[in-house]
Amino acid sequence: MSAVPVSKPKPFVLYTAGTPNGHKVSVFLEELRAVYGEKVDYDVEKIDIARNVQKEPWFIKLNPNGRIPVLVDRAREDFVVFETAAILLYLEQHYDPERKLGFDPVLQPNDYSEMLQWMLWAHGGVGPMQGQANHFNRSAPVDIPYAKKRYILETKRLYGVMEIRLTDRDYLAGPGRGVYSAADINVFPWIRAHRFTGIESLDEWPSLQMWFGRIEAREAVQDGLAIP
Amino acid sequence: MSAVPVSKPKPFVLYTAGTPNGHKVSVFLEELRAVYGEKVDYDVEKIDIARNVQKEPWFIKLNPNGRIPVLVDRAREDFVVFETAAILLYLEQHYDPERKLGFDPVLQPNDYSEMLQWMLWAHGGVGPMQGQANHFNRSAPVDIPYAKKRYILETKRLYGVMEIRLTDRDYLAGPGRGVYSAADINVFPWIRAHRFTGIESLDEWPSLQMWFGRIEAREAVQDGLAIP
Repeated sequence: MSAVPVSKPKPFVLYTAGTPNGHKVSVFLEELRAVYGEKVDYDVEKIDIARNVQKEPWFIKLNPNGRIPVLVDRAREDFVVFETAAILLYLEQHYDPERKLGFDPVLQPNDYSEMLQWMLWAHGGVGPMQGQANHFNRSAPVDIPYAKKRYILETKRLYGVMEIRLTDRDYLAGPGRGVYSAADINVFPWIRAHRFTGIESLDEWPSLQMWFGRIEAREAVQDGLAIP
Repeated sequence: MSAVPVSKPKPFVLYTAGTPNGHKVSVFLEELRAVYGEKVDYDVEKIDIARNVQKEPWFIKLNPNGRIPVLVDRAREDFVVFETAAILLYLEQHYDPERKLGFDPVLQPNDYSEMLQWMLWAHGGVGPMQGQANHFNRSAPVDIPYAKKRYILETKRLYGVMEIRLTDRDYLAGPGRGVYSAADINVFPWIRAHRFTGIESLDEWPSLQMWFGRIEAREAVQDGLAIP
């Protein structure tokens, strides 16, 4: 008998869709791949969110919240991780030993905490609020000027908070002018969607705009944005 | 000269108000105090959010997002932490060596990740969405039935997600039936506010209701809810 090459399964399965939340994780994985190669390779399972596949019973077993993205770690007994920022923190802990995209919680505790603070700030602010702006300005079945304005203004306020932070920094967390990390990747795809939301340009926030350009220029970021 | 006793400053200052987000941190601190005593004692600075004190320049220097709560750690060179879940994780890392309210990221990595997942789920879901339900049902200057209903339904959906998780568990994270942790404290004050939001009872979610009673009965929880 001739030997048949058996392809080793990739370490992860990523259930995702082409949304800002999906892109947070695919960008992070591509940044890891650029450093660690096939050790962090992954299969992509595209979820058709327009058809509500993420609400089907098999998916609810993975994530009771019924939302993409979800990561399954084949290399760690199919451990399941949901919630974008929790996925980034999981990958950072287990698969970024050189801390290229984060900080060591024990050796760099303050940088690590600042990274968490900005991740949580985006996770509880930019994502949900810009999401509501999208709903009322693009998909709600009724025209509600009060709600349209409320969420656009809140999204702009949040962009202004990033502008304050980035005025004398290149990245959200890290010493000196900051270091590119999960804190930046965690919010970048939402900022990228500003035009979709109805915010025509980032001109009002020059430091944010420069930060955006810096990240957008990265090859791994572009690779991540192409998934699925 | 007679010796004058000099009182040692308490390790923390907590800038807070009597809201669900404020109570997340004061409950967590009271739980730590019940274990570790004065090592985790704190001064409370009540912020008058009705007067927008949290938007004043001195506060924006602490937290550019202009929101309570903020923790200042005098014992670690006045390190500043904002975003509720980031404050809990900071306190857990530095001030809970016995891991009474959390899990060791290295020794219990899966429990730790599940704690993070449920903290992030609440931080990006229950808090922002129940907050919007409160806005449209209690304080918006216009009556918008569509938005009122949207956010009440979303809050109820999220309570239903907790019901799924808690059906065969006592607490959100941890092995077996779970262990009381930061994941529970992080969402408890929002669930407690259900009547304020217009959700009359928790009867629809029996496992959530039992979880709620279990936590509400804790002395440290009641102490934390009394602050400020």
